[in-house]
Amino acid sequence: MILFQLTTYARSAPLRWGFVGCGRITNDFAAVIDALPDTDHTVFAFASRNVSRADDYACRFGAAKSYGSYEALAKDPDVDVVYIGTINPTHYEISKLMLANNKHVLCEKPLTLIGAQAAEIFKIAESKQLFFQEAILTRFFPATIRMQDFAKTAVGDIRLVTAYLGQNSATSLRHVRKQLGGGSVKDRSGYVLQHALAVLGNDLPDKISAVGQLNNETVDSTAAIELQWKDGRMASLGFSLLTTVMPAEANIYGSSATIKMPDTFARPTAVQLINSANTTIENYPLPTVLDHRTFLANAAGMIYEAQEVRRCILAGLLESPLLTHKDSLTILAIQDEVLKQIGVSYDSLYANGVFVGSSLEPELQAPVLKPVSCPNFYH
Amino acid sequence: MILFQLTTYARSAPLRWGFVGCGRITNDFAAVIDALPDTDHTVFAFASRNVSRADDYACRFGAAKSYGSYEALAKDPDVDVVYIGTINPTHYEISKLMLANNKHVLCEKPLTLIGAQAAEIFKIAESKQLFFQEAILTRFFPATIRMQDFAKTAVGDIRLVTAYLGQNSATSLRHVRKQLGGGSVKDRSGYVLQHALAVLGNDLPDKISAVGQLNNETVDSTAAIELQWKDGRMASLGFSLLTTVMPAEANIYGSSATIKMPDTFARPTAVQLINSANTTIENYPLPTVLDHRTFLANAAGMIYEAQEVRRCILAGLLESPLLTHKDSLTILAIQDEVLKQIGVSYDSLYANGVFVGSSLEPELQAPVLKPVSCPNFYH
Repeated sequence: MILFQLTTYARSAPLRWGFVGCGRITNDFAAVIDALPDTDHTVFAFASRNVSRADDYACRFGAAKSYGSYEALAKDPDVDVVYIGTINPTHYEISKLMLANNKHVLCEKPLTLIGAQAAEIFKIAESKQLFFQEAILTRFFPATIRMQDFAKTAVGDIRLVTAYLGQNSATSLRHVRKQLGGGSVKDRSGYVLQHALAVLGNDLPDKISAVGQLNNETVDSTAAIELQWKDGRMASLGFSLLTTVMPAEANIYGSSATIKMPDTFARPTAVQLINSANTTIENYPLPTVLDHRTFLANAAGMIYEAQEVRRCILAGLLESPLLTHKDSLTILAIQDEVLKQIGVSYDSLYANGVFVGSSLEPELQAPVLKPVSCPNFYH
Repeated sequence: MILFQLTTYARSAPLRWGFVGCGRITNDFAAVIDALPDTDHTVFAFASRNVSRADDYACRFGAAKSYGSYEALAKDPDVDVVYIGTINPTHYEISKLMLANNKHVLCEKPLTLIGAQAAEIFKIAESKQLFFQEAILTRFFPATIRMQDFAKTAVGDIRLVTAYLGQNSATSLRHVRKQLGGGSVKDRSGYVLQHALAVLGNDLPDKISAVGQLNNETVDSTAAIELQWKDGRMASLGFSLLTTVMPAEANIYGSSATIKMPDTFARPTAVQLINSANTTIENYPLPTVLDHRTFLANAAGMIYEAQEVRRCILAGLLESPLLTHKDSLTILAIQDEVLKQIGVSYDSLYANGVFVGSSLEPELQAPVLKPVSCPNFYH
């Protein structure tokens, strides 16, 4: 476990969240922060390159600050931890910007488009003794933690771990456009890979094999991955951006039982244990009703992630033991190898580590929210 | 379509079946033949190296003949078609023996342990103008045929085909012993591979990738396979001999719908079509109650296979269009490549094409049937 020295952070203070990028996912995570006790978490500031959007978000969530640049938020000394909810290709730069300004960070998955970028980020975070977490929310759900218990104690020898997930994102530009860091490996595989590693451990597999279909922008729209470790551990995984119905199902097949994560395993509320005698279902209902409209199914489950971030920061951890830097690096290394095998590269999106993609297109995914009347006094 | 000349076979006569090997699967297929009209099919003769077992089977099913050697059955001029239900490593020799004696053949899967052996068998069958069919029973079920229709007409572009199947065969020697031709690829993969090819076509994939766990006899007990063709068609498949619960589930994920074959897709009685609007289930209940005890779940569904054999022979076909020689050869070629990748070889089981494995062990799988009082007049 990586620890940092508790110095400046006051144990009893609420964690003041800064939100970078004002899209759907930021809306949902802010909704969750807003639902948590004010003594623990505060929706403190929003930043968007479109300042009126940052204003709008600040107004909706009652935040103290809004900024028209990420730099400005980074330099705000009152922000304790930054949530990065921008499009994939920008995570690398923004993560480094926030770390350079001594912020703890929770960054949306995929942490980076290229594994080496993530390794660099973690190195900086560790050298600066800052908490840095990739936001693979699945890992923090009680049903996922229970699934991991079952995998250790109730299934015997594990023969095969499988996970599939897909939905139709054909009209979502950030999913399907290479210029925006789209592609099924980067947008979907994190879920199935984290499932495999949650059960089989986070060392790099000895064999990684992938097949994929590319779209006309030469990013992958559907792919399947096989993993194998020398000791026999195996996983078979698949995911797609272009299926109408691909239920998010994950199974662990063991010598004495099967664990099923009923749809959707990505944000699970139940675990099913099936052996030859019977089937047991354990339910883990979501904890709360949110005050704000959300976009993601089971968005309330992001509460677990938020609580874990606070717990870790208070405990002086640099990473959550539920999803370590090594977990993230293994997932990203597998993605690198998969992309190589199916012929996809994001190298052209960067010049000297800076994203050179379109600066406007990210805004295309703006959520449609009912207008509210907010004063314009955030600047 | 390969045709033979209709010469000696009388169109109106019942097909007289000879059964080779008196194990569970032969019991079940004979039960099905016995359930079909006497004007179409006759349970005519049984052969076992253990003559008393052949006698017992002949008695139970009211067969005219029983033999203590496969050669004797092969030379019986009144046998029209032979069903081969012996252990895997013997299929090659017995198939050739039956063809040499001008019998049509239905041989259990896997047709052979090595793909080249199957190619040789098909060549002989075609040169002798005999009907020869690998008994992959799934292909003849109405639900399978309907699934293929749906795959062509109702799912849009196919993104990924998946199939998984397993059960615990740890104590079944013919499944787990190399000497008996055991192993998950040979005993289970035929089901998942035929599913993929039923939907994606039977040309050899451009990429075959496999991972597998080997048991202490160096045959595979669990494996997973990925297939990809240059045009993007893909399948992700898995199977095991050592899981307690691995429901036999197969899915076709398309751009506009998903087809699910509910457990068990290997002998299916239903097809499920799921699109964003709704889920439709079509049921294809099994056609009949059998008079005899059977071992295989849904054994009555073997009726479809038996009827197709008769239809093909009457029509002068050398193979069923529902499962062609090319289908079998592609499945066996994929199995060859998979076995190579995971490090399993059956070469040592043969000397000059003759099975040199134990001659007694196959009998270990004898079904336990209630004794009946039968006269001993079959010789």
